[in-house]
Amino acid sequence: MTTATLANARIRITAFDWVPDFAQGNVRDIRIRWALEEAELAYEAIILDQGSQNDPENIARQPFGQVPAIEIDGRTMFESGAIVWTIAEGAGEALLPNDEWERRSCLSWVLASLNSVEPALMNLAELDFFVADEAVKRLHRPYVVEQIELRLGQLCDALDGREHLVGDRFTAADLMMTAVLRIARHTNVLSRFPTLDAYVARHLARPAHKRALEAQLRPFGENAAKYETAG
Amino acid sequence: MTTATLANARIRITAFDWVPDFAQGNVRDIRIRWALEEAELAYEAIILDQGSQNDPENIARQPFGQVPAIEIDGRTMFESGAIVWTIAEGAGEALLPNDEWERRSCLSWVLASLNSVEPALMNLAELDFFVADEAVKRLHRPYVVEQIELRLGQLCDALDGREHLVGDRFTAADLMMTAVLRIARHTNVLSRFPTLDAYVARHLARPAHKRALEAQLRPFGENAAKYETAG
Repeated sequence: MTTATLANARIRITAFDWVPDFAQGNVRDIRIRWALEEAELAYEAIILDQGSQNDPENIARQPFGQVPAIEIDGRTMFESGAIVWTIAEGAGEALLPNDEWERRSCLSWVLASLNSVEPALMNLAELDFFVADEAVKRLHRPYVVEQIELRLGQLCDALDGREHLVGDRFTAADLMMTAVLRIARHTNVLSRFPTLDAYVARHLARPAHKRALEAQLRPFGENAAKYETAG
Repeated sequence: MTTATLANARIRITAFDWVPDFAQGNVRDIRIRWALEEAELAYEAIILDQGSQNDPENIARQPFGQVPAIEIDGRTMFESGAIVWTIAEGAGEALLPNDEWERRSCLSWVLASLNSVEPALMNLAELDFFVADEAVKRLHRPYVVEQIELRLGQLCDALDGREHLVGDRFTAADLMMTAVLRIARHTNVLSRFPTLDAYVARHLARPAHKRALEAQLRPFGENAAKYETAG
């Protein structure tokens, strides 16, 4: 994807009209919105009603019935990691350094966020919000938290006091890692790692993230009544 | 990474000298070896003793103390997804179609393998091989299997009888999805999805995969005595 292609494209992303509290700010379109805001690329949102994500129209763009997907001049991609990487590569130096090997490090860290850190955090979110069995919730939690702490400790060591994962600037690697770490917000696991807690807070305070978050939350506010009374 | 860069580079990957039975063939360097074999790129293996993965030398290339990492002319990357994608992009049409949008679909599917399918399968592998609590093993399994079946069903629908995920040829998307699905081998979850079972078997039978598997297993055979008597 060249910079010119992306700069002149009509960009649309899918998002939900509402999600429960625990998911607000963590629905994966936040990653795309944030990347687009950092790259100063305008976009529109295709807002899906809760419950319509498994309709044929959405399955055609997102085989797992999730959000987000992206349309770039009518062509579709899915998976937040793939989309963020495509935007990053097509957005000049907004999200990636110029140096080829630093870019490779960014790709390593984007994948590490998604494949080595996110699964551990998602297991805790699942246990807290989706698993119904009270015995499993209670007995499995220490194991799940231990796996998270292992990863977060290693991540702290890798940061080694630096402000960014790659080089001395914000990149797609920090965007993805921050978005992933935010999943643990409902717990106190991050507070045991003050370096990471500060890392997340610093990046979430970026104006581009604030705009992205506001844009994701806006429809939730507008549609809350519809779902909350329906429940 | 240009094709010329990769073709002329000295490539080294990290791998283990031995792993327990359940992990044999699934250690993540298999993905890199397979991609390199498909691309007909020669490589050397840096074989790590079991237990040395958290030594400073390995942590410097792989912050989470895992394998694989790759060295390309002495520069390092980690995470199998990032490495496979870098090889795919640098290997002409060996692992990717020429069309830009088909390449974007391949990237979507590589990420889907790692972020939407692998975590579900890994939860089952963890439950079967790492979780010690017998009550958790028993009570949590139905939930974990249900999550897998949801994903595999959606994947079947997406394949819709086709032999490949993108276009009508083998790509990096099939490589990664096959390597991920292989994780479930110790169970019968795949057999409930004959389309996927055939998809996996067909791709695992590729000569490049066979060479990759043989190369991963070779040191395991040579070093088995060392670990099995030590246990």
